[in-house]
Amino acid sequence: MGNLRRVPVGIVGASGYGGVQLVRLLMDHPEVEVVYLGGESSAGKTFADLYPHLGSVVQLNIEAVDPELIASRCEVVFLSLPNGLACDIAPKLIEKGCKVLDLSADYRFSELKTYTTWYGTERSDRTIAKTAVYGLPELYRDRIAETNLIGCPGCYPTASLLALAPLLKQGLIIPETAIIDAKSGTSGGGRQGKINLLLAEADNSLAAYNVARHRHTPEIEQICSDLAGHEVTVQFTPHLIPMVRGILATVYATLRDPGLVRDDLITIYTAFYRNSPWVKICNSGTYPQTKWACGSNSCYIGIEVDPRTRRVIVMSAIDNLIKGQAGQAIQCMNIMMGWDETLGLPKVGFYP
Amino acid sequence: MGNLRRVPVGIVGASGYGGVQLVRLLMDHPEVEVVYLGGESSAGKTFADLYPHLGSVVQLNIEAVDPELIASRCEVVFLSLPNGLACDIAPKLIEKGCKVLDLSADYRFSELKTYTTWYGTERSDRTIAKTAVYGLPELYRDRIAETNLIGCPGCYPTASLLALAPLLKQGLIIPETAIIDAKSGTSGGGRQGKINLLLAEADNSLAAYNVARHRHTPEIEQICSDLAGHEVTVQFTPHLIPMVRGILATVYATLRDPGLVRDDLITIYTAFYRNSPWVKICNSGTYPQTKWACGSNSCYIGIEVDPRTRRVIVMSAIDNLIKGQAGQAIQCMNIMMGWDETLGLPKVGFYP
Amino acid sequence: MGNLRRVPVGIVGASGYGGVQLVRLLMDHPEVEVVYLGGESSAGKTFADLYPHLGSVVQLNIEAVDPELIASRCEVVFLSLPNGLACDIAPKLIEKGCKVLDLSADYRFSELKTYTTWYGTERSDRTIAKTAVYGLPELYRDRIAETNLIGCPGCYPTASLLALAPLLKQGLIIPETAIIDAKSGTSGGGRQGKINLLLAEADNSLAAYNVARHRHTPEIEQICSDLAGHEVTVQFTPHLIPMVRGILATVYATLRDPGLVRDDLITIYTAFYRNSPWVKICNSGTYPQTKWACGSNSCYIGIEVDPRTRRVIVMSAIDNLIKGQAGQAIQCMNIMMGWDETLGLPKVGFYP
Amino acid sequence: MGNLRRVPVGIVGASGYGGVQLVRLLMDHPEVEVVYLGGESSAGKTFADLYPHLGSVVQLNIEAVDPELIASRCEVVFLSLPNGLACDIAPKLIEKGCKVLDLSADYRFSELKTYTTWYGTERSDRTIAKTAVYGLPELYRDRIAETNLIGCPGCYPTASLLALAPLLKQGLIIPETAIIDAKSGTSGGGRQGKINLLLAEADNSLAAYNVARHRHTPEIEQICSDLAGHEVTVQFTPHLIPMVRGILATVYATLRDPGLVRDDLITIYTAFYRNSPWVKICNSGTYPQTKWACGSNSCYIGIEVDPRTRRVIVMSAIDNLIKGQAGQAIQCMNIMMGWDETLGLPKVGFYP
Repeated sequence: MGNLRRVPVGIVGASGYGGVQLVRLLMDHPEVEVVYLGGESSAGKTFADLYPHLGSVVQLNIEAVDPELIASRCEVVFLSLPNGLACDIAPKLIEKGCKVLDLSADYRFSELKTYTTWYGTERSDRTIAKTAVYGLPELYRDRIAETNLIGCPGCYPTASLLALAPLLKQGLIIPETAIIDAKSGTSGGGRQGKINLLLAEADNSLAAYNVARHRHTPEIEQICSDLAGHEVTVQFTPHLIPMVRGILATVYATLRDPGLVRDDLITIYTAFYRNSPWVKICNSGTYPQTKWACGSNSCYIGIEVDPRTRRVIVMSAIDNLIKGQAGQAIQCMNIMMGWDETLGLPKVGFYP
Repeated sequence: MGNLRRVPVGIVGASGYGGVQLVRLLMDHPEVEVVYLGGESSAGKTFADLYPHLGSVVQLNIEAVDPELIASRCEVVFLSLPNGLACDIAPKLIEKGCKVLDLSADYRFSELKTYTTWYGTERSDRTIAKTAVYGLPELYRDRIAETNLIGCPGCYPTASLLALAPLLKQGLIIPETAIIDAKSGTSGGGRQGKINLLLAEADNSLAAYNVARHRHTPEIEQICSDLAGHEVTVQFTPHLIPMVRGILATVYATLRDPGLVRDDLITIYTAFYRNSPWVKICNSGTYPQTKWACGSNSCYIGIEVDPRTRRVIVMSAIDNLIKGQAGQAIQCMNIMMGWDETLGLPKVGFYP
Repeated sequence: MGNLRRVPVGIVGASGYGGVQLVRLLMDHPEVEVVYLGGESSAGKTFADLYPHLGSVVQLNIEAVDPELIASRCEVVFLSLPNGLACDIAPKLIEKGCKVLDLSADYRFSELKTYTTWYGTERSDRTIAKTAVYGLPELYRDRIAETNLIGCPGCYPTASLLALAPLLKQGLIIPETAIIDAKSGTSGGGRQGKINLLLAEADNSLAAYNVARHRHTPEIEQICSDLAGHEVTVQFTPHLIPMVRGILATVYATLRDPGLVRDDLITIYTAFYRNSPWVKICNSGTYPQTKWACGSNSCYIGIEVDPRTRRVIVMSAIDNLIKGQAGQAIQCMNIMMGWDETLGLPKVGFYP
Repeated sequence: MGNLRRVPVGIVGASGYGGVQLVRLLMDHPEVEVVYLGGESSAGKTFADLYPHLGSVVQLNIEAVDPELIASRCEVVFLSLPNGLACDIAPKLIEKGCKVLDLSADYRFSELKTYTTWYGTERSDRTIAKTAVYGLPELYRDRIAETNLIGCPGCYPTASLLALAPLLKQGLIIPETAIIDAKSGTSGGGRQGKINLLLAEADNSLAAYNVARHRHTPEIEQICSDLAGHEVTVQFTPHLIPMVRGILATVYATLRDPGLVRDDLITIYTAFYRNSPWVKICNSGTYPQTKWACGSNSCYIGIEVDPRTRRVIVMSAIDNLIKGQAGQAIQCMNIMMGWDETLGLPKVGFYP
C-alpha cells in the first residue's frame, strides 16, 4: 500500500483458531508483515499442512519457539498459547524490546493473587505482569497506547464488559444485581478433539457449563470493579450453542432510577461509545443477531428496559474469534503503534 | 394391545408441527385410535400430501372443521390451532360431551382480562373458560383428572415453571428476583415461511426476541403467583437458537436462606417431583443438555448454587414439541382418562 | 408383552453410538431383556457415566469382556466393536451356543481374502467366518433365519444396496456404469475426538473423503456381484455432511432398455420389496429426505429416469445409526428368533 | 486508493442475498463507488431496513427501478433480479452506454431457443442478447474484456464447469459419461419464506431435488459443448445441504486413456488454470472442503483417479454467493474495466 517498510510481526501458537485468525487478518493489514509463525507441537510443518486452503497465501513454515530468535526478527509478537505459557516467554520478548500482545489469561489480572486462585498456577514474572494493560480499547485506549505488554481480554468478558460498562461507569445500576447469561459458538472451545465439541454431540443441543465457576468471572469482576469504583460481584453463566462462531451476552441489571426508559439508555450508550468505531448501538427496538458480527471486529449492542421489573436488559453480540480474540488484539496493536484503530480490520460481517 | 375398543380421538389443526407430533405419538398410543384429522387450509388433502414419509402409517385425510361431526366421532379432541380459534370450537365440543385439550393460549388464563391484555382479543366463551384447567400435570394433576377442558401450557412456561415450582412453592427464593433466560430451537416458530426462520438466516446465529414483552410472560406469572400465594412478576427473555428442537430455560433467583447448598436443593427437587415420572433431577454437578430430552416427554433439571452471589441457578431442558406441546397434552389426556400418565409416551430421547 | 420370559441379550461395546442405539432400542423390545453391557475402556463405569440422561432407564454397569461369562448369561449377543476385535470373541460365543450379531466389518465378507486386502489383517477364525450371513434382511432373509452368526452391513452399503438391488437382480442396468455418490452425517464417524468431526470444523462445510478407496466399496461390490451373477465393480464416493444422522445414497446407472420410464421402475421396486416392511418406495416425482428416516428403521427410496441420458437415478435415505446399524441388527435378530421382523423397531421417524 | 474518481456503479435488486453480497464487496472495492441501489418491492426503504447491521456502512436508500435514471448516474450496473426481468431493463441500459452484468439466467444462453425451452418465456431482446458473453472468466476472459453485457453463470454451472473444463477442452474424457452430483447450501434458494428452506425443515436433513430437470443443466451443457466442440449431454443432480453457504460439485467421467494417473491430471489442471488466480488445484490426495472457499472468490479443485473403474473424480468447492454469484460478477467487471481481475475481492476464506 505504498509504505516502504512494513512492521515485522510474529505469531506464537499459530495452529489454533486464534492463530489462524491472526494470520488471516494480519495478511491483509497494510502496515505489517508476518515474518514468523511459531508452535511447539507443529514446529517443522508448513502452515499449509495445518490449513491446506491457506497454502497459496501463506508460505511460512511453523518454527520452534525461541524467544531470542523471535525478538531478533519481530517488532510485535502475538502469543496465542494455552494459559500459563505466555508468562514464560513474554518477559524475554519485552526485555529485547518487542511489543507483546498475549491472547491467553496470563496478563489479564492486575492482582496475580486472583490469577493464582482461579487458574491454580504460581508465577515468577510478577514485575513485568504489573506493567500489562488489559486490552479492551473501548475502556483502556490511553493506557494501551503507552504500554508494550497487553493482556488481551477473553471472549466472554469482551461481550459482557462492553454491555455493562456504561451502566457501571455512570452508576445507573445496582452492581450486585448484574447477571450475565452468555452464549457461545463451539469454536470458543478451540481446535482440539474433545467429545463434547463433536458435531454429533453439540449440534442440535444446548447446555450451560461451568456454572458459577467459569474462569472468565474474576476477569469480568475485575473490570466491573474498576468501572464502579468498588468491589463488584457478578453472576456469569456460559452456554454452548450449536454454531461455529459468535457470542451473545444477555445482561440483566436493576436500574437505580426507575424513570429511565429505553431511549435514554440508547442515548447514554451512543455517547459513551462515540469514539469507539467498533461498537454499534442498535436502533430502539432492535436486538443484535450474532450473525451480524460474524467475520467483523464489530460489537453490536441492543438495549431494552422492562418498566414492570425496573430492569435493563442489554444484549451484545460479537464474533468470538475476532472482536473476542484476534481482531481485538490487532485493534490493540494499532493503538500501540499509533495507527488508526480500525486499520486492517473487517468492518462488515459475513451475511448470511 | 389387547383392549377390545380404543378410544376415538381427533386432532384439529393436524398440519403444523404440533399436529404432526400428536399424530405420530397417538399412533403408538395403546388406548386410543386417531379417527379424525381436521384443518382449514389443508382440508381435502391426505396427510401424506403434507408429510409424504408418513403416508404408509397414516391413511387419514384432512377434513373440514365441523364441531358437530367431530363430536359425533371423537371422545377426545386435541385443538392445535393458532391463538384465538379454539375458543370458537371448544365450547361446542364440550357441550356435546367431548374432552378437549387445547394447545393454543386460549384456555391458559384463569383471568380472561390477562388474556385480553396480552393477546388483544375479546372472547364470548367466558363461562366455559372458567372450567379450563392449566395442563401442567406436575402441578395440577388432581384438577386435570376432573376436568373436560385443558389449556395446555406454552413451551417456554413448561420449562420455566418446572424449574421454578419447588422454589416458589416452598418459599425458598425472593420471587421478584427471578429471571428466566430461555433458549428455543426454531421449530417453536411453527411450520410457516418466515424469513427469520430460514436456515440461511437462523443457522449459525443467535438472538433474543420480544424482550420484556413475550406473551408467555403473563402465563408464567399466573402460575408463579399461584405457587407463591401472592402476585409475582418475573423477567422472561426468549432467544432463538440455531437448532430444530429443544428448550433450555436458565433460571436465576436469590435464595432467602444463604445456608442452602446445591445438594439441599437437589434433595428438595427430588422430593417435590417424586411422583412425577417425567421430571428427572440431574446428579450434583451435572447440567442438562437439550439433546437429552429431544424425542422424549422428559424434563431434565440441573441445579447449581453460587455461594458468592447467594443465587440458585436452575436449568431445565425439554423437547419443545413433546413435553413442551404434544407430549404434555397426551400426558394430560392420560390423566383425564384415568390411565397411567406415562402411557404411550417416549421415555428415552433420541441421542445423538 | 405378556410372555413370561424374555430372551436375555448382551451388548459388547456399549459405549459408542452403535451401542447406545442398541441399548435404547432393545430396552423397548417386547421379547428381550438386556442383561449384559460390556466394554474394555469403560468397564467398571455405569451406563449413566457415559450417557447421564439414560441413567433413569438403564441401571446396568459396563462389565469387562469375558466371553465365557457373556455366554453363560446371554442367548443373543451384539458385538459393536472396532473392526478386527469381533473375530476373536465371536467364535467363543458361537461355540457356547449364542447367536451373534456383529456390527463391525469382521463377518461381512464371504472371501476373507477381500477382507485381508482392504482391512490389512490376517484372521484365525476362517472356519466359523464361512458360516456368517450378510445381515441385509431384504436380500438374505432366508439365510439369516438359519444362521447363528450375522455380519451386519455397513451403513453406506445398506443404503447403496437397497437402491441397487432390484436393478441388478433383474438385469435392468449395465452394472459397470453404477456410480454411488453417498452422503452421511458425522455420527457415522463415531464418538471419538477427531478434529475433522468437531462442530467448528464440520458444520457449514462439506467434502468427499476416501475417494476411490473407501472400505465399504468391496462390501458393496460383493453383494452387487451376488445379485448380478457375475463380478461387478462400482464407483463409490462418500461425503461428510454437516448433520448428525442420516445417509443419502444417490445412485446412477445406465438402463439397458431405453424404453423404461420412471413409473415402470416404481412398479418394479414396489414388487421387489413387497415383503419388506422397512422399505418405502416414494410416489412418482417424490424424492426422499434423510430426515424422514431419522429415528426409524425405514429406508425411503425415490426413483427418477432421465430419458435424455438413459440413466436411472435412485436415491435412498436411511438413518445411519438405525437401519444403517443398530436397527438392522435387531431386525436380523427378529428373523433369527422367528419373530416378526418389525418387532420392537420404530416405524415412524422423528420429524422435524 | 488514491484515484481521484471512482467509477459509479448501481445494483438493481439489492435486497436479496446476491444483492447484499454485491453491496458488501463493492463497498470495499478500491475503484468503484456504489451510487444506486434499486428494488421494486423494497423501494423507499433504507438498506438498513433490510439489513440493520449494515446501516452504519451503507447509507443508501432503495430506489425505484428507472433505467433512464440509473443510466444517468451509473457506468456499471449489476442486475440481481429473478429470471425474466433483466431482459426488459438491460437493453435500455446498454443503449445509454452502461456496462451491464446480469446475475439471472436471462443472458446466459447463446441460443434463446434453449432459454425458451427451459424457462418457458418468450423474449423481445433477441438482438442485444446475441452480444452477451457468458461471464466465466476462466474460460471467456478475452470475450468478457470486449463486451458490455455479461450473463453471469449460475452457481452450480460455475462449480461444475471449472471442474470439467480441462477434461473436455483437452479431450481426456468420454463426454457423455459425465455425471455431476452437486450439493448446495440453502442460501442458494434465496431470501424468501419457503417452507422447505426453513431451519426446522432443512437442518439435519438432505435431499436431491429437480432430478433430471434442473434449469442449470442446459447452461452446463452449452458450455461443455463449446469446450468439446460438439453437442454434449450431461447428468446433473442438485442436492440441498443443511448449511448456509457453499457448493461442492462431485464430477465423474470415464477417461479415454486408461494410463492417466492422478498426478498427470493435477499437472494438466495446474497448467490449464495457470493464469486464473481464483482457481486453486489441491495437492495430490487432498480434497476440498466447501468451508475453505466460504467468504472468498476462490474455487478449490481436488482430483482423483480410480484405476479400477478408469474414472476421474473431480471435486470443486466454491462459495455459492461469491464465486458462484456476486464475486464472479465483480471479477467480470474488473476484466471489462481493464483492472486486475482480483481487485477488491476476498482472497482468503472465513475459517472455521
